[in-house]
Amino acid sequence: MNRRHFTRALGAVAAGAALPRALFATDASRHFAAAPPRVNGTRLNAALTALSEFGKNPQGGVTRLAYTAPDLAAREYTKARMKEAGLDVRVDGVGNIYGTRAGTNAAAKPIIFGSHVDSVPEGGNFDGPVGVFGAIEVAQTLREQNITTMHPLEVVVWQNEEGGTWGSHLITAERVTAAELATVSRGGLSIAAGIRALGADPANISAARRARGSAHAYVELHIEQGGTLDREKLDIGVVEGIVGLRQWEVTIEGFANHAGTTPMDGRRDAMLSASRFIEAVNRVVRAESGRQVGTVGRIQAFPGAPNVIPGRVVCTLELRDLDDAKIGRLYDAVRAEATKIGAQNETTFAYSPLVTHESARCDDRVRALISAAAKGQGFSTKSLPSGAGHDAQNLARICPMGMIFVPSVGGISHSPREFTRAADITNGANVLLDVVLRLDAATLA
Amino acid sequence: MNRRHFTRALGAVAAGAALPRALFATDASRHFAAAPPRVNGTRLNAALTALSEFGKNPQGGVTRLAYTAPDLAAREYTKARMKEAGLDVRVDGVGNIYGTRAGTNAAAKPIIFGSHVDSVPEGGNFDGPVGVFGAIEVAQTLREQNITTMHPLEVVVWQNEEGGTWGSHLITAERVTAAELATVSRGGLSIAAGIRALGADPANISAARRARGSAHAYVELHIEQGGTLDREKLDIGVVEGIVGLRQWEVTIEGFANHAGTTPMDGRRDAMLSASRFIEAVNRVVRAESGRQVGTVGRIQAFPGAPNVIPGRVVCTLELRDLDDAKIGRLYDAVRAEATKIGAQNETTFAYSPLVTHESARCDDRVRALISAAAKGQGFSTKSLPSGAGHDAQNLARICPMGMIFVPSVGGISHSPREFTRAADITNGANVLLDVVLRLDAATLA
Repeated sequence: MNRRHFTRALGAVAAGAALPRALFATDASRHFAAAPPRVNGTRLNAALTALSEFGKNPQGGVTRLAYTAPDLAAREYTKARMKEAGLDVRVDGVGNIYGTRAGTNAAAKPIIFGSHVDSVPEGGNFDGPVGVFGAIEVAQTLREQNITTMHPLEVVVWQNEEGGTWGSHLITAERVTAAELATVSRGGLSIAAGIRALGADPANISAARRARGSAHAYVELHIEQGGTLDREKLDIGVVEGIVGLRQWEVTIEGFANHAGTTPMDGRRDAMLSASRFIEAVNRVVRAESGRQVGTVGRIQAFPGAPNVIPGRVVCTLELRDLDDAKIGRLYDAVRAEATKIGAQNETTFAYSPLVTHESARCDDRVRALISAAAKGQGFSTKSLPSGAGHDAQNLARICPMGMIFVPSVGGISHSPREFTRAADITNGANVLLDVVLRLDAATLA
Repeated sequence: MNRRHFTRALGAVAAGAALPRALFATDASRHFAAAPPRVNGTRLNAALTALSEFGKNPQGGVTRLAYTAPDLAAREYTKARMKEAGLDVRVDGVGNIYGTRAGTNAAAKPIIFGSHVDSVPEGGNFDGPVGVFGAIEVAQTLREQNITTMHPLEVVVWQNEEGGTWGSHLITAERVTAAELATVSRGGLSIAAGIRALGADPANISAARRARGSAHAYVELHIEQGGTLDREKLDIGVVEGIVGLRQWEVTIEGFANHAGTTPMDGRRDAMLSASRFIEAVNRVVRAESGRQVGTVGRIQAFPGAPNVIPGRVVCTLELRDLDDAKIGRLYDAVRAEATKIGAQNETTFAYSPLVTHESARCDDRVRALISAAAKGQGFSTKSLPSGAGHDAQNLARICPMGMIFVPSVGGISHSPREFTRAADITNGANVLLDVVLRLDAATLA
């Protein structure tokens, strides 16, 4: 995409020709008489490049953990870009950044769209920022095109997505517990201390809360962190929903003993049981058809010396699927296998829940709008679940929610090698722009 | 055992009656006319209890890593006990403590016996100290009984056994490399810095060296760190040799990726390969008959987050057997299995040697003496290999070597739960005493 696309001079023949005219002939048509507006892809991608300096790694990615200095610096840069886009910037009571643009109807519920700018350790430059800067670019384009929506628009930067979608959780949860606020995030601060580091005050959490029904819709543009769109050479993913996720810490107890003097048949080797557990997770998850996944990502043996049979192994188990009931069935099956494994060498398995996120379905009407907007611009699309968690799953608690995916090369994410082509980012922002306008015209209540 | 055993008043009828009279009628008989001498078990066990205060843990064991403050304090206590036993105490050029007792023939080669006082982290009170204080008790008993051997006696405390039998290695190795001296021991100091911490000077290593043929024999009393003697209710283990040991660091490379978005069949999961590797080690080691053992004691996954498929796993592999060639065969078989495992999911295995200790056979003549001494005192015995490494394996480089084992309850070692009964410790010291006297009378050259 290039500058031509957002000049009114282009006329109705070019990109706009692919739009469903019927829709634009009704409500959406009030926004523009000639060609539909298009974002400035060059400016959008330049902003992403500029952002990649904050927390930059030698490998080319970023380490921008929430609440750390690079995160704070990236947020300041983002606020400045929001202001340039004509947005009224404020930080809410938990540290989320909102950039608001008034609508023609002050009583109308806002349309919220955005993402996050924090990263995992040694993460990439696209997971989060594409959605934030895509949203800012949409706002700036509307301003430049003198398009005012009926609904107020709110571009949002959620705080600490990678640590567990905290910013969106804190303002959509029924209640926030003291234990949650005491959780220590990967950057070293608790959530409460992090809120303060962002210039907000944990005492104001309830004031920041957004009630069910208080927003018209939430839509988030994001890279597809799997490789489906890239592998199938598709432009836009229309997200069906965000899979549920459950994580446990699994403790396997055997008996630590001398690795030289304890015969093989006299061992209660927690490591051997752990190895059979990991294999069983893989076997159980693959046993049924579907897109469920199961992972053991962390492991530690105690005492952890080459010459001592491990008496204890602690590892994690994570299961994800769009169907929460299926996650429960898989968990039961894994535990049944583990019990058998433990009986083989007198080891025991214990499970402690770490994280539970229920699956969140995207709103069917929002999905239809995204699909229509993408197809209207001539893009190839695919409906797919999001295997990764996103702030959107929390927003589904309070309003109709949808997500737009753009391809990530090789499906690589949470890595300095994460990469999304500039053209795909521009495409995604143009779909987002169109979706915001279509949402503005739609009755969703 | 009690005080009665080492008084000459006892006469020849009691414990001495079980001794092979033929042997005592010849050379050994020169030491004592009536009952054979016996150690003071009460004093010996009291010294062990006193030693257990240095580095004491709440769990009842000790953490007395070489070169740390508790190790230094334990060494000072040991030196004081040596002096009480009438030994001439000196520290050699690498920090080993020798307590010497002159023999009647100043030209005769010394008989060396002892063990170590350092421990593993959260270790027990018997692994090492039983041999050191058993040896001191033997020297003190000989003094009290006015028995002077022909050979000089040297009671030894080897420095840093648990970190890799360093003290005995440094004085018996053909050559010591700079890389060895730079090795960082578990207490935090390098071997060179550790030598200095013990009041010695690494510049004097060559002066401390003991040449091949320079000692009459080396004998070490130690707890059996397996459970064989305890399980079979036997008094004394006659050690056949110390098993060879090889350790490797194994690095399994796959590809780190998002645990939510990467389908099961698109993963190059290093953790899954690691689990199959651990299972294969167990299968290969058990596939042949024999007493060989194989252990994976340490493991780490990278990046090590519950929600990331591990792209790399690093673990250890240790193999031990009395036959070094068998260790080599097992290693080859494990590697062949690993190659097949790697092919299943595009992961690779690489091996980096950590430690190699060749097996060390005990001297047949010393073994026979130990067996005769134990049987002569009416003890039940068993010949068995040592699955654990000991300083004795290094002494085998320079002189005939033997080891005496006493039972460890449940075979537990390297743990605060390590326990050897006082009576068994006294039995072991009495066998050691008898063996020293028999060695003194024996021609081994």
